[in-house]
Amino acid sequence: MIKAVLLLILVLVAMSSTFGKYIPKTGKRIPQTLSRGWGDQLIWAQTYEEALYWSRSRNKPLMVLFHLEDCPHSQALRKVFSDNEIQKTLDEDFIVLNLVYETTDKHLSQDGQYVPRIIFVDPTMTVRGDIIGPYANRMYAYEPNDLKLLLSNMQKAKKLLKSEL
Amino acid sequence: MIKAVLLLILVLVAMSSTFGKYIPKTGKRIPQTLSRGWGDQLIWAQTYEEALYWSRSRNKPLMVLFHLEDCPHSQALRKVFSDNEIQKTLDEDFIVLNLVYETTDKHLSQDGQYVPRIIFVDPTMTVRGDIIGPYANRMYAYEPNDLKLLLSNMQKAKKLLKSEL
Repeated sequence: MIKAVLLLILVLVAMSSTFGKYIPKTGKRIPQTLSRGWGDQLIWAQTYEEALYWSRSRNKPLMVLFHLEDCPHSQALRKVFSDNEIQKTLDEDFIVLNLVYETTDKHLSQDGQYVPRIIFVDPTMTVRGDIIGPYANRMYAYEPNDLKLLLSNMQKAKKLLKSEL
Repeated sequence: MIKAVLLLILVLVAMSSTFGKYIPKTGKRIPQTLSRGWGDQLIWAQTYEEALYWSRSRNKPLMVLFHLEDCPHSQALRKVFSDNEIQKTLDEDFIVLNLVYETTDKHLSQDGQYVPRIIFVDPTMTVRGDIIGPYANRMYAYEPNDLKLLLSNMQKAKKLLKSEL
């Protein structure tokens, strides 16, 4: 009974909050999230500048993920990305940023601007070009079967270049 | 009755979709949106580079809004920003970007990095330094009472510097 009342209140609040608000001609849209489906529970940075600032100030490595919503390879990787250990590690030990648009920083596209592409950056703002996936022609690409390598690469990235003494 | 069944299905789907998914120790979080409360129905660009690209390719002016979630002036402006005409104009005629972190582009902080601050950019990638609010010391600031000026500034920004012939 209490649940039903709560549900009713929820529905009323949801209804009332739509009154007087702009609705596009093409119909109501679902608000875009910063996660874009790569982990709704992670706290995503919005821009590379923001991510670098967080990484430096919190002394945590940064993971930059380039992807495209319409790319089947990105979609396939996204499915396995919800893996509990990946999400937990990223949430607790990393700053995370996902981008669908390239930055002007060429250090993030050392061997091209393909997607999906995962690049780690040290809190010293050094791009970890040495942390690579299994493909020689696209060094920062991962496929769904490469989850274990991705996890071990995260462990590598966690060993900071300049550890605090 | 049909509504009740639909609601039940919705609840079941919502429940099932949380199984096996990562939940932070501190409890489940609400996914961050790109709108950050400035218009859930607008299609926000994520980064300045992305916004400039959209602006050029769609030949629409860009509105860049700098704000901070904890800033009372930003919060006050955000409340009136839900105005129907503002939202409709932005949705139909503008590319929109809101940022809580400064970019490296100094053209966007011609008279300082204060918030809230609204800057228009022409599709030619020219920052419209001439479109200003009513305050001499913070030229791109607006307060809740300045909604009419903001709307007329939007009309100014819609007159593109280089119109198609």
